[in-house]
Amino acid sequence: MELSVKQIADLLGGKVQGDGSIKIKKLDTLQEASKGSISFLSNPKYENQIYQTQASAVICNMDFSPKNTLKTTLIKVEDAYLSFSSLLEEINRQNSLQKVGIEEPSYIGENTSTGDKVYRGAFSYIGNSVKIGENVKIYPQAYIGDNSTIGNNTIIHSGVKIYPKTKIGNNCIIHSGAIVGSDGFGFAPQSDGSYKPIPQMGNVIIEDNVSIGSNTVIDCATLNSTIIRDGVKLDNLIQVAHNVEIGKNTVIAAQSGISGSTKIGEHCVIAGQVGVIGHLQIADKVIIGAQAGIGKSIDQKGTIILGSPGFERNQYLRSYTVFKRLPDIENRIKELEEKSLNLPTTED
Amino acid sequence: MELSVKQIADLLGGKVQGDGSIKIKKLDTLQEASKGSISFLSNPKYENQIYQTQASAVICNMDFSPKNTLKTTLIKVEDAYLSFSSLLEEINRQNSLQKVGIEEPSYIGENTSTGDKVYRGAFSYIGNSVKIGENVKIYPQAYIGDNSTIGNNTIIHSGVKIYPKTKIGNNCIIHSGAIVGSDGFGFAPQSDGSYKPIPQMGNVIIEDNVSIGSNTVIDCATLNSTIIRDGVKLDNLIQVAHNVEIGKNTVIAAQSGISGSTKIGEHCVIAGQVGVIGHLQIADKVIIGAQAGIGKSIDQKGTIILGSPGFERNQYLRSYTVFKRLPDIENRIKELEEKSLNLPTTED
Amino acid sequence: MELSVKQIADLLGGKVQGDGSIKIKKLDTLQEASKGSISFLSNPKYENQIYQTQASAVICNMDFSPKNTLKTTLIKVEDAYLSFSSLLEEINRQNSLQKVGIEEPSYIGENTSTGDKVYRGAFSYIGNSVKIGENVKIYPQAYIGDNSTIGNNTIIHSGVKIYPKTKIGNNCIIHSGAIVGSDGFGFAPQSDGSYKPIPQMGNVIIEDNVSIGSNTVIDCATLNSTIIRDGVKLDNLIQVAHNVEIGKNTVIAAQSGISGSTKIGEHCVIAGQVGVIGHLQIADKVIIGAQAGIGKSIDQKGTIILGSPGFERNQYLRSYTVFKRLPDIENRIKELEEKSLNLPTTED
Repeated sequence: MELSVKQIADLLGGKVQGDGSIKIKKLDTLQEASKGSISFLSNPKYENQIYQTQASAVICNMDFSPKNTLKTTLIKVEDAYLSFSSLLEEINRQNSLQKVGIEEPSYIGENTSTGDKVYRGAFSYIGNSVKIGENVKIYPQAYIGDNSTIGNNTIIHSGVKIYPKTKIGNNCIIHSGAIVGSDGFGFAPQSDGSYKPIPQMGNVIIEDNVSIGSNTVIDCATLNSTIIRDGVKLDNLIQVAHNVEIGKNTVIAAQSGISGSTKIGEHCVIAGQVGVIGHLQIADKVIIGAQAGIGKSIDQKGTIILGSPGFERNQYLRSYTVFKRLPDIENRIKELEEKSLNLPTTED
Repeated sequence: MELSVKQIADLLGGKVQGDGSIKIKKLDTLQEASKGSISFLSNPKYENQIYQTQASAVICNMDFSPKNTLKTTLIKVEDAYLSFSSLLEEINRQNSLQKVGIEEPSYIGENTSTGDKVYRGAFSYIGNSVKIGENVKIYPQAYIGDNSTIGNNTIIHSGVKIYPKTKIGNNCIIHSGAIVGSDGFGFAPQSDGSYKPIPQMGNVIIEDNVSIGSNTVIDCATLNSTIIRDGVKLDNLIQVAHNVEIGKNTVIAAQSGISGSTKIGEHCVIAGQVGVIGHLQIADKVIIGAQAGIGKSIDQKGTIILGSPGFERNQYLRSYTVFKRLPDIENRIKELEEKSLNLPTTED
Repeated sequence: MELSVKQIADLLGGKVQGDGSIKIKKLDTLQEASKGSISFLSNPKYENQIYQTQASAVICNMDFSPKNTLKTTLIKVEDAYLSFSSLLEEINRQNSLQKVGIEEPSYIGENTSTGDKVYRGAFSYIGNSVKIGENVKIYPQAYIGDNSTIGNNTIIHSGVKIYPKTKIGNNCIIHSGAIVGSDGFGFAPQSDGSYKPIPQMGNVIIEDNVSIGSNTVIDCATLNSTIIRDGVKLDNLIQVAHNVEIGKNTVIAAQSGISGSTKIGEHCVIAGQVGVIGHLQIADKVIIGAQAGIGKSIDQKGTIILGSPGFERNQYLRSYTVFKRLPDIENRIKELEEKSLNLPTTED
């Protein structure tokens, strides 16, 4: 990357205040920036950093008026944070689009088709009867099982394993070590106390714009499909069991687990290390706090749940406040008991 | 797959009621089935679905007598659920047995032997002095370290990593991304506050009929062996530390962790996200609820434990019931205190 | 391995008591040892085992004086446990140093350099402009992205994925399935309720002497670096989010998660399944118990935290002791209430 401040301002639809000819080579925070860096100021809390920054240029909000002398050039935009993000994204996109072509050795099965501008890294494996869209990037050592389909612009990072029959949409990103479509955990107890696997014959459907984090696992359905809807974002090391459905634009943080056949609504926010048991229905816009344990369906939109077992937020906070004072409460009971021993009763 | 209803009935030892010549092409649920599908009715709760299903045939229990008109052919069997499962399994088995032979490039070391009907996927790696049994399937990009042995009919999915010296039995399934035999987490504290790794010289032994889920990790023993006994079923993303032993037919759900040197009994059921600390003994048939934390050995067979820290089930439920009412309880104490202030005491 | 007892004693700086010419072929515990084994006695609790062991030699502390007849040869040292560990380590080191050279097919990009005595396993992938130090071992199917550097003597196990631009120091061990440098979980909410990925442009820096367990994930920073300091030991299946920093010689057990931008101090000990939320500061030498949930910064060195939500140890233990007695406490309140109903009040 080497762009002038003016070029960046044009890209972002912003206004230059200072020297527009300065060359920018990298992006950085105000504190860490050096000559040739561009940075941003969005949160007024960090305003003092802009007077000391070594950045050659800073993206700031239109309404920013400096209280002290500035040594840096400004690019004024509507929303500094979003503009800086867009700039990062543009550079990222340009980088990721660079990889095109086939590194050898790589493996491709029969009756498999790939679109234009596909990258297939060395040691990647694509099975039989697979359909790969345009501009898909399949990094080294990834595996795509037979009869799968992958939409346009999707990125499959190194070492991802996609079991047969999986359907993946457009513009998805799947990070290293993620496993999609492995057998659901279903076993029929036998009379001798052993378990016989129940064959898992379904698949996984991942719609468009889905992100899946590193080492996350999504099991296939027993029959039919485990479904990850449009725009869902899954962090790392998450467990999604068989026949789960996760609604549009729901976000789940690292190390959470959703048990079999549970349906999660749209626009939910589930924090890290949460557990949800099987066969539940979680309404839209539900928020679940970190490490919570959900044992019952949640019917009401927008409910906030905390704790394990999970309680509605206010009830949880009230109970925990008292929990912290339990030793004190026990003392108060002791005092009451002692007093009551000293008391005359109506029976006296 | 294309079988007639009559052929399927023969396979299952069932009785056809209707047209036995209809061709079946796939399996599906009553609700999702279409022409050419076979489905099943086991739970009477779903009986109404059988009158509306598009399935060409339905497997049902011997004692099922329809209350309304049926448009579908029936196959009557002892246990509809088990029969449907067996059918799935049979088809599954036939599919999985299809892959035979060697895809290139693949790597095989010296002094290594493989049995009949083995599949070795592209980019799979088998080290030196490894013994592979009959009908073993090693999917692409799997790794089998030196001096390991794998029994008959075992399936090693894509990307599984088996460290050297591991022993795996017959009829096991190991899913993608599972790691078997990595170093146990053992470090000797040094006088300068740093830690020196304690060499982990043991191995992992996996007996017969064991299932291991995706991205689950089983560490090798410091000395001797970490042991997974016959029939154990491990879900995804589980941690099994060094020198652990898991007893016959025990089932552990996703994201649970068993710390070093703990011995789990036979026929235990451990739910998801459970943690068990090290050096414990857990008796046979113990049941541990989701997200529980086990800090003490459990001596009594069949104990049920809930919560973190874990309590015996009844005690846990009693305490949690009161926990939910804590704010109310505190109010009751306040009232008592106010009353007691208004009271004459014997000292008055 | 085949060494005489005398050779081993010399290696350890110990004194032989008995026959120094005996040949030792393997290491084992006192209980499991057979002829040709060497074992150790450190904890006096196990002293009785030394009188029954089949080991040909036993490493023991200088001050050990047997109460019964011994059938085994002794090697007396300052610290039997450390000496036995060193012996294991030495053998381990010799084994791991054996793998040298390049197995084919393997992939190496342009402008990439590797030091002496490097091992590159089959199907390993090293991108462009990578620097690999001396004596580095890269096992089969590992992936090292463009522009990364790896110091001397570092071991990258099978299937590890290192994203581009990662810096790894000397003497590190990274176990199978670990992912270093995948995208942090950052998304900007859009007006239509969807989320747009915030490009993650930073990298991961891993200093010297770091161990990373199997299937652990370390995300890259949004800008700048996620940093794992010298001597840190991470167990399996851990989540380290973007922009986290983990201080020198801190140890974290399996399945714990550290959220974005949190800074963990030096010499901390974090047990298994712990969750720490984002943007916190944890002081040095803090100890966090298994399954704890940390929602606030911890300022004081050496604090011990237990529970979810986490409390300081003593407060937690007091509250939990009362929690267990909650049903009893409620009964005591009921009794008080009944008594108070029977009381005359000053208003009477």
